[in-house]
Amino acid sequence: MKVAVVLSGCGHLDGSEITEAVSVLVALDRAGADYFCCAPHGEQHEVVDHLRGEAVPGKVRYVLTESARIARGRVRDLGEVSAGDLDALVFPGGFGAAKNLSSFALDGAACGVQADVERLILETHGARRPIGLICIAPVLAARVLGARGHSPLLTIGHDAQTAAAIEAMGGRHQDCAATECVVDEQNRLVSTPAYMLGRGPAEVFGGIGRCIETLLRLIPR
Amino acid sequence: MKVAVVLSGCGHLDGSEITEAVSVLVALDRAGADYFCCAPHGEQHEVVDHLRGEAVPGKVRYVLTESARIARGRVRDLGEVSAGDLDALVFPGGFGAAKNLSSFALDGAACGVQADVERLILETHGARRPIGLICIAPVLAARVLGARGHSPLLTIGHDAQTAAAIEAMGGRHQDCAATECVVDEQNRLVSTPAYMLGRGPAEVFGGIGRCIETLLRLIPR
Repeated sequence: MKVAVVLSGCGHLDGSEITEAVSVLVALDRAGADYFCCAPHGEQHEVVDHLRGEAVPGKVRYVLTESARIARGRVRDLGEVSAGDLDALVFPGGFGAAKNLSSFALDGAACGVQADVERLILETHGARRPIGLICIAPVLAARVLGARGHSPLLTIGHDAQTAAAIEAMGGRHQDCAATECVVDEQNRLVSTPAYMLGRGPAEVFGGIGRCIETLLRLIPR
Repeated sequence: MKVAVVLSGCGHLDGSEITEAVSVLVALDRAGADYFCCAPHGEQHEVVDHLRGEAVPGKVRYVLTESARIARGRVRDLGEVSAGDLDALVFPGGFGAAKNLSSFALDGAACGVQADVERLILETHGARRPIGLICIAPVLAARVLGARGHSPLLTIGHDAQTAAAIEAMGGRHQDCAATECVVDEQNRLVSTPAYMLGRGPAEVFGGIGRCIETLLRLIPR
């Protein structure tokens, strides 16, 4: 079992949510799954000072370079990854998924999705391999698969506005607790709310653990 | 039970090791312990590109600001924290502990320790409250407590050079597996090797879980 984890920077306001990303890696390693991290090449949408919670005008950081902080240097350029390299795909959350992997934070249901992210979701879905989507990342599958009539079933917890955006993009939304996950058997998607809803690291770690266990069971043998 | 977690930036080459820091927070939250993160004010010793593994000359980042990425913004200035605020103290590892919290990465056994780190270790030790030390962080206790004749018993796994430095600073070193921890009952210290030795996130998470459980049991009631 080889699982690709798509990172989007390092820090929940401008990149991957760190606790979510680490929870994914611990869960995969515990299950004995082989995994690798990858991230798109290119500048972050913005750099946010996480102490003040404010964007820092004029600052530039790179998605792949910052993602390497979580991955301890071992991160591949997403542009060089194809579905043939993997048995499953996972997207941790954080605003990076909505700013660097897509424009959802700016454009909502009218968002675009980064080209390699879109390609890899389509290739993986087409190969009937499972995709795990955490926190805000389900909007990526809603946009890419919803637009093509696959009606993906997803959760982001119970935030009404984001759930409505998922439905507007052609997805279906199901409410879910932070410690649980929602499975779309048809499209082989597993999603969990994580910090869309979770009150702290233990809840987030637990929900992601369940999501990854379920994901690995959906890998075709 | 209130536990202070001292961060040193965000990323193992110039700050806190991310998986170690998250493992600490998950273990504390799971145990129902109240915790807060803190970090020293001031510039990092250096900024390292984690993709290339090389320092970036002329770049400046701040320890407190980068630590806020792991802590989701909730991080206190270490200068404003005293032992009266806490029942236990934890130091995750990463080169930040050896570059920003001390000068161990540069000066080895002759290192200095950041003033607030030194003060807080002395206050906490003096109040008979436990201190958890992960990965390379045991060198902080070796320096501060070793120099005062407390002969702290510590582990950094089995790296001969670092173990010798601990002994040279007045500490005692005991070999230990990544999934275990070493306890100094007299000085109320618990240490675990984590990424000094661990082969992946699951092992590191397991060893730190054991370290934190042991730490919480050492809190005076």
